[in-house]
Amino acid sequence: MIELPPAPACAFASDNAAGAHPSVIDAIVRANVGHQLAYGSDAHTAEAGARFRDLFGPTAESFLVWNGTGANVMSLATVIHPAEAVVCSEWAHIAVDETGAPERALGAKVMTLPSVDGKVRPEQLDALAHFIGDQHHAQPGVLSITQSTELGTVYTPDEVAALCDTAHRLGMRVHLDGARIANATAALGGTIQALRSFTVDAGVDVVSFGGTKAGLVGGEAVVFLNPALASRAKYVRKQVNQLPSKMRFIAAQFNALLHDDLWIRLAEHSNAMGTRLYEATRSIDGLSFDAAPQVNSVFPCLSPEAIVPLQEWCFFWNWNAARDQVRWMTAWDTTPADVDRFAEGVRIFLAECN
Amino acid sequence: MIELPPAPACAFASDNAAGAHPSVIDAIVRANVGHQLAYGSDAHTAEAGARFRDLFGPTAESFLVWNGTGANVMSLATVIHPAEAVVCSEWAHIAVDETGAPERALGAKVMTLPSVDGKVRPEQLDALAHFIGDQHHAQPGVLSITQSTELGTVYTPDEVAALCDTAHRLGMRVHLDGARIANATAALGGTIQALRSFTVDAGVDVVSFGGTKAGLVGGEAVVFLNPALASRAKYVRKQVNQLPSKMRFIAAQFNALLHDDLWIRLAEHSNAMGTRLYEATRSIDGLSFDAAPQVNSVFPCLSPEAIVPLQEWCFFWNWNAARDQVRWMTAWDTTPADVDRFAEGVRIFLAECN
Amino acid sequence: MIELPPAPACAFASDNAAGAHPSVIDAIVRANVGHQLAYGSDAHTAEAGARFRDLFGPTAESFLVWNGTGANVMSLATVIHPAEAVVCSEWAHIAVDETGAPERALGAKVMTLPSVDGKVRPEQLDALAHFIGDQHHAQPGVLSITQSTELGTVYTPDEVAALCDTAHRLGMRVHLDGARIANATAALGGTIQALRSFTVDAGVDVVSFGGTKAGLVGGEAVVFLNPALASRAKYVRKQVNQLPSKMRFIAAQFNALLHDDLWIRLAEHSNAMGTRLYEATRSIDGLSFDAAPQVNSVFPCLSPEAIVPLQEWCFFWNWNAARDQVRWMTAWDTTPADVDRFAEGVRIFLAECN
Amino acid sequence: MIELPPAPACAFASDNAAGAHPSVIDAIVRANVGHQLAYGSDAHTAEAGARFRDLFGPTAESFLVWNGTGANVMSLATVIHPAEAVVCSEWAHIAVDETGAPERALGAKVMTLPSVDGKVRPEQLDALAHFIGDQHHAQPGVLSITQSTELGTVYTPDEVAALCDTAHRLGMRVHLDGARIANATAALGGTIQALRSFTVDAGVDVVSFGGTKAGLVGGEAVVFLNPALASRAKYVRKQVNQLPSKMRFIAAQFNALLHDDLWIRLAEHSNAMGTRLYEATRSIDGLSFDAAPQVNSVFPCLSPEAIVPLQEWCFFWNWNAARDQVRWMTAWDTTPADVDRFAEGVRIFLAECN
Repeated sequence: MIELPPAPACAFASDNAAGAHPSVIDAIVRANVGHQLAYGSDAHTAEAGARFRDLFGPTAESFLVWNGTGANVMSLATVIHPAEAVVCSEWAHIAVDETGAPERALGAKVMTLPSVDGKVRPEQLDALAHFIGDQHHAQPGVLSITQSTELGTVYTPDEVAALCDTAHRLGMRVHLDGARIANATAALGGTIQALRSFTVDAGVDVVSFGGTKAGLVGGEAVVFLNPALASRAKYVRKQVNQLPSKMRFIAAQFNALLHDDLWIRLAEHSNAMGTRLYEATRSIDGLSFDAAPQVNSVFPCLSPEAIVPLQEWCFFWNWNAARDQVRWMTAWDTTPADVDRFAEGVRIFLAECN
Repeated sequence: MIELPPAPACAFASDNAAGAHPSVIDAIVRANVGHQLAYGSDAHTAEAGARFRDLFGPTAESFLVWNGTGANVMSLATVIHPAEAVVCSEWAHIAVDETGAPERALGAKVMTLPSVDGKVRPEQLDALAHFIGDQHHAQPGVLSITQSTELGTVYTPDEVAALCDTAHRLGMRVHLDGARIANATAALGGTIQALRSFTVDAGVDVVSFGGTKAGLVGGEAVVFLNPALASRAKYVRKQVNQLPSKMRFIAAQFNALLHDDLWIRLAEHSNAMGTRLYEATRSIDGLSFDAAPQVNSVFPCLSPEAIVPLQEWCFFWNWNAARDQVRWMTAWDTTPADVDRFAEGVRIFLAECN
Repeated sequence: MIELPPAPACAFASDNAAGAHPSVIDAIVRANVGHQLAYGSDAHTAEAGARFRDLFGPTAESFLVWNGTGANVMSLATVIHPAEAVVCSEWAHIAVDETGAPERALGAKVMTLPSVDGKVRPEQLDALAHFIGDQHHAQPGVLSITQSTELGTVYTPDEVAALCDTAHRLGMRVHLDGARIANATAALGGTIQALRSFTVDAGVDVVSFGGTKAGLVGGEAVVFLNPALASRAKYVRKQVNQLPSKMRFIAAQFNALLHDDLWIRLAEHSNAMGTRLYEATRSIDGLSFDAAPQVNSVFPCLSPEAIVPLQEWCFFWNWNAARDQVRWMTAWDTTPADVDRFAEGVRIFLAECN
Repeated sequence: MIELPPAPACAFASDNAAGAHPSVIDAIVRANVGHQLAYGSDAHTAEAGARFRDLFGPTAESFLVWNGTGANVMSLATVIHPAEAVVCSEWAHIAVDETGAPERALGAKVMTLPSVDGKVRPEQLDALAHFIGDQHHAQPGVLSITQSTELGTVYTPDEVAALCDTAHRLGMRVHLDGARIANATAALGGTIQALRSFTVDAGVDVVSFGGTKAGLVGGEAVVFLNPALASRAKYVRKQVNQLPSKMRFIAAQFNALLHDDLWIRLAEHSNAMGTRLYEATRSIDGLSFDAAPQVNSVFPCLSPEAIVPLQEWCFFWNWNAARDQVRWMTAWDTTPADVDRFAEGVRIFLAECN
C-alpha cells in the first residue's frame, strides 16, 4: 500500500468542477432586487450587450444562453443552410461530446476531419471542394473550430485567418467554439487586442463565448461578429431551449466577469497553473507528454496500471484509452499548493510502482 | 393628464419578472465551495434526487435542467415514439409560446385541441381514436397537460386521473407541464398529498417541475413518475442542451426551495395576492372578469384605449387581443401594498376615462 | 337484403385508385432503351424541364420527385427559414394526411387556420402579424395553399393573388400544393393561361405539380416559379429521399402527360364526371350536399346507417364523421356508365332504407 | 488523336444507368387494369408480401418504398431509439452519398468506422463499448452494414453473424443496406438459402432490399426480419415520404423480379460481366487493381491523364481521387460484347498513352 499525500479534491478533473469567482456570486446577489422584465428586457442584459460590443466592436450582437452545447447548437442552427454539413476536427466537442445534439437540432451532418493536435488546416477544407455542387453529398456549409482546442492547443491568429479565408472562399461560414476562449486569449497575449486578433480581425462569423469554465456559476454567450447572419438568432435561441427567463442573473455574472478584464486574469492564472503542473511532472519517470501545455490542460501518457489508483486518490478523466493518455486540467481557482501536492503524489506513486 | 400613484415596477408582468427567494440566493453562495464533479456527480444533486423522491415516491427519477421549454422538450423527446404526435390544449405553452421548440427537437406534430379554460377533456382524446392505426395520420402518442393551466385554471385530481385513464387506454403517455406546479399544489390544499393527488396518484408519467417561477434564479426538473420511461432520459437531456455542467448550483437552489415546503408557502402567498388583486378590482367599472382566480393570475377585459396608458404606468402583458383581455400576474414576492397600489391606480385611471 | 346493381370496383374511392393513362404506360415502355445516366442527367428529364418552362415561363426550375408528400416536404424545406412556421388551412393535406412528415423533415411548426371551404383568407394571414418579431412564437414563414383544395373547391386567380400579396408583404413565401392542379386548371378554363393565372401570374413561389392523380403510374414535380428560391433545391431533394435514380422513367411519364395538354383534357373529363355524379344524386332522398362540385369530388352527408353497407357494395372513404359526410371522387378514367351505375345503386339503397 | 472503337453508351457508369428488365415492364403494363385501392390495399402488394415471406420466412414484414435512400432512412428511423447513433463504415452510402438524409430524418449522428474494404469488423463495435452509458456521447444504437459493400466486397455469412452477435450483445440493432443484395446473393451461391445465410440466419434485424439496381424501373423494399421491430414501420414509411400511392405498380415490378429467382439470375449475369471485365483488363499496362471483383464492379487505378479522355469516350465515375481510382460497373443487361469493346478501347488508349 503506497502512502500518498492528502489529495486536493477533484482539483484536476476539469475547469467545470470549479465553483464561481466571488465577484460573480456577488453580482448574482446584487442583481436580486425587485422585478425586472424577463427574457432580456432588463438593464443587466443591456449592459452585457455593451460589454460584448466593447470586446468585439460596435456591430457585434450578443445573445446570452445557458450552456456550451446550447451556444454551439444555437450558433450553428442560425447560420447553416438547408442540406449543408458542419465541418470540424475529429476531436471537436460538437462531434464527440454533445450526444449528437447538433445532429438533432440541425438535422445536419457533422463532418469530421482528422487532426493530431485538434486543429483544422485550410488544405483540409480545400479537399472538400469536390463535394460542392454535387447533389449526392451534404454541402460543406459551416466550419466550426475550437479555440483553445479540445487538445489544449491554440490557433495563432494567422491560422484562424487562413481558415476563414479558405472557408469564405468556398462559401462557408465560420463558427468558433470558445468554451475556453479566455484561456486562448490569455495564451495569445492577454489583451482585448489578442481576443480580436483571432476572432473579429481573422474573419470569424460567430463565437460561442464561454463563461462557465471561466468562472461563472453558469452562462455562455453567442456573439455574432458578422451581424448580417444574426437576423434569425433570437428566434433560434428560444427554439433550441436557450432563452433564460430571469436573464438578469446570467447577464450580471457576465458583467462581473468581463469587468476590468477579470476573465483574462483568471485564465492567465489557470494557464500558469497548467504550466506549473507540466513543469512539476514532466521529468517524472513513467509519464510522457506530447508537448508543453499552451493553456490549462496537460495530457500525460502513463502505465495503465497506474491510472485507476491515481484516479481513486485524486480523480481525473481518461482521455485516449488507445494511448493510455489522461487529462489533468487546472481552473481559475487552482492554487500552486494544489499543483505541488498533486505532482508530489504522482511522483511518489509512480516511483513505488516502478 | 391623469395623476396616478407611483407604480410598483413590473410588479404584475409575470412571475418570472420576480427575483429569487433569499434562501435560494443563500444556497448558491453556500454551494460555492471547492471543486465538485460536474454534470450531476455532486452531493447537492444527490440531495435533490432524494428530495424529489420524498415528494413523488421512491421510484421517481429526477433530472435537473435549465428552463421550462427545455424541461418540456426533454420530457416529450424521452417518451414519444416514432411518428407520434403530442396532443395538448390550444393554449398550451408548448404549442403557442415556445417558438416551435417541440417540433424542432421532436420532429413531431403538436396537435392542439380547442379549450375555453385551458383544460383538455377525456372525450377530446377519445375523439382522436379514429386516427389510431391509420398510416396517414400522426399517431396520438403523448398527452401534455399544464397544471396550473396557461389560463390560470387548475385541474382537479379527478380530472387529471380521468385524462390519464383515457390516454393510457389509447396507448398514450401523459406529461404534465408544471411550470406553475407550486401554484396548483397550493390551490389544491398546499400539501405533499395534494401534489401527489394530481400527479403520481392520478397516473401522470412525467412532470416538468417548475422552479424558476416558484422563486429560483433559474432551474427546472424533469421527474419521471413512471421510471420505466426514463431509460433514455439522461442522454436526451444532454442532446437537447439541458445538461448543466456546474449542476450543484441548480441542485442547491432546489434544495433550498423544497426545504420545509418553502415552495408551497411561496405559492400560497402568490395565489393569495392573485385573489387580493381580483377582490380589489372586480367591482371597478370598466373591468370584466371571466372568473375568480384559482392561482396567481387574473385576466381582465377592459377598454382597448385604457390598456396602453395603464401598461405605460405599470407594465403588464396583453393576453387575448380579440377580447381586449390582459393578464395581471402576481409572484412569490408580491406585497399586499403592491396589490393595493396597483388596484388604486387602475381604479383612478378608469374612473377618469369614463 | 337489398338487391343492388354490380358495383364498379373502387370507382369512387379516390383518383389514386385509378391506373395510368395508356400513353403514360407507353412512354415507360419506349423509355426503356439502353443505358442513360441516372439522377436526371438524361434526355427525358431535359425534355421535362423544357415542358415545365413552356407551362410556367422560361425561368421556372422543375425537379422531378416521387410523390405528393415528398413534393410538399421538398418545397417547404427548400424555402423555409430557421424558426419559421408553415401556415395552412386546417384541412391541408400537409397538416392532416401526411403523418407529420413536414414536422419531421422541417423541424417546424405547421400552423393551421380554420376554414369552412378549404381556403385560406388574406385577413387570416394579417391576423398572424402580431407574431412577427416576437421571439416566443414560431414566425409565419411559408403560406401553403392547396389548389384545388382538399374540400373540392377552387381558388380564383384573384384570391390566390391576394393571398400572395399579403403573404409577401408579411415576408412570407407561398407554396401551392397542386396534387390536383390539373383539376383546378380544367375548372378555371382548361388552358395554359388558366394555369398561369393562379400560379406564376398570381405570385406563387413554388408549386407541387401533381402527376400521379392526373394519370401517371407515379411521379410529381416541384416547380420553382421564383427561381431565386431554388438554389438549395437539388440538395434538399436528395436529402428528403426524393431523388429518383432512373429518373428517365418519371420524366417520360410527364412528357406523355404534358404532351398536347393531355393532363388538362383528362382533368376536364374527371371534373365532368364529378358534376355528372352530383347531378345524378343531388335529388336522392337521404343525401345532402353543401354545394355543387367544382372539380372531381362530391361530399354528401347521409344517414350513418347507410354508409357502411354502401361502402361494402362499392368502397368510398369517410370524410367528416362529425357530419356523417363521405367523399365520392372521380378519376381520369371514370366512365359515364360507372357514374350512372353508382348513382342508381345509391338511389335504390337509400329508397329501401327509408 | 487516338482512334477508339465506338463506345457502348454509359455502359459501365452504374447499374442504375440500365433500364428495366422486359418482364418488369410487362408487369407494369399488366397491372394497369381498373381501379385498385391505393397505399398497399391491393392484390399485387399482397402478393409481394407473400413473396418476401417466401424469401425470408413467415414472420418477415415487408414494406414497399420508392428508393434506396428512402429505404435506408425508413429502416433506421423505425428501429433507432432517442439519442442513439447509427454506426457504419466510412464508405457507407448512408454516410457519404445521401446528402445527410439520415441525419435530417433521424436527428441522429451517423458514426463512421475506418475500413479498407468497405466492411465493419466486430472488434470495431467492441471498441465503441466505452461510449455506452456515458451521457456525453451519442449511444451506439444501430449497426448498418452494406451487402455487397460500396467497395464491391461481400461479407461472408459468418462475418455478418459475428457482427450481429456483437451488436446485439451491445444492445444494438442491425440494418443491412441491400441496394445490391441480389449481387451478394449471387456471389454467395445464388440460392434463397444463400440469401438467408447472411440475413435472417445471421441475425440481421431489418433489410433494405434493392430492386432498382436489380432490374426494376424503380422500387425498393424494407423487410423486417425481426417483426418485433416493425410496429411503427407503416407510420414511419409515410412520415419519411416513402409511401407510394399507386403501390400496385411497385408491387407488380417486384412480383416479376422475384418470380422464378429472376433477380438472382440477373445478378449472376451482372457479376459474371464484372469478372469478365476484370479478366479482360487486368493485364493492361497502366491499370492496377486491388483485387478481383466479387460482384459487379471493378475499381482500377490509372494515370490521371488517362481518366478524363476515357470518360469522354465512354463515361464512368471517379471513385477515389487521392488514388486516381475509378469505378467500372456492370449491370443486369451488360453484354459480353459491351465488355469486350470497352476493354479493347481501354487497351488501345493506354497503349497509345505510354
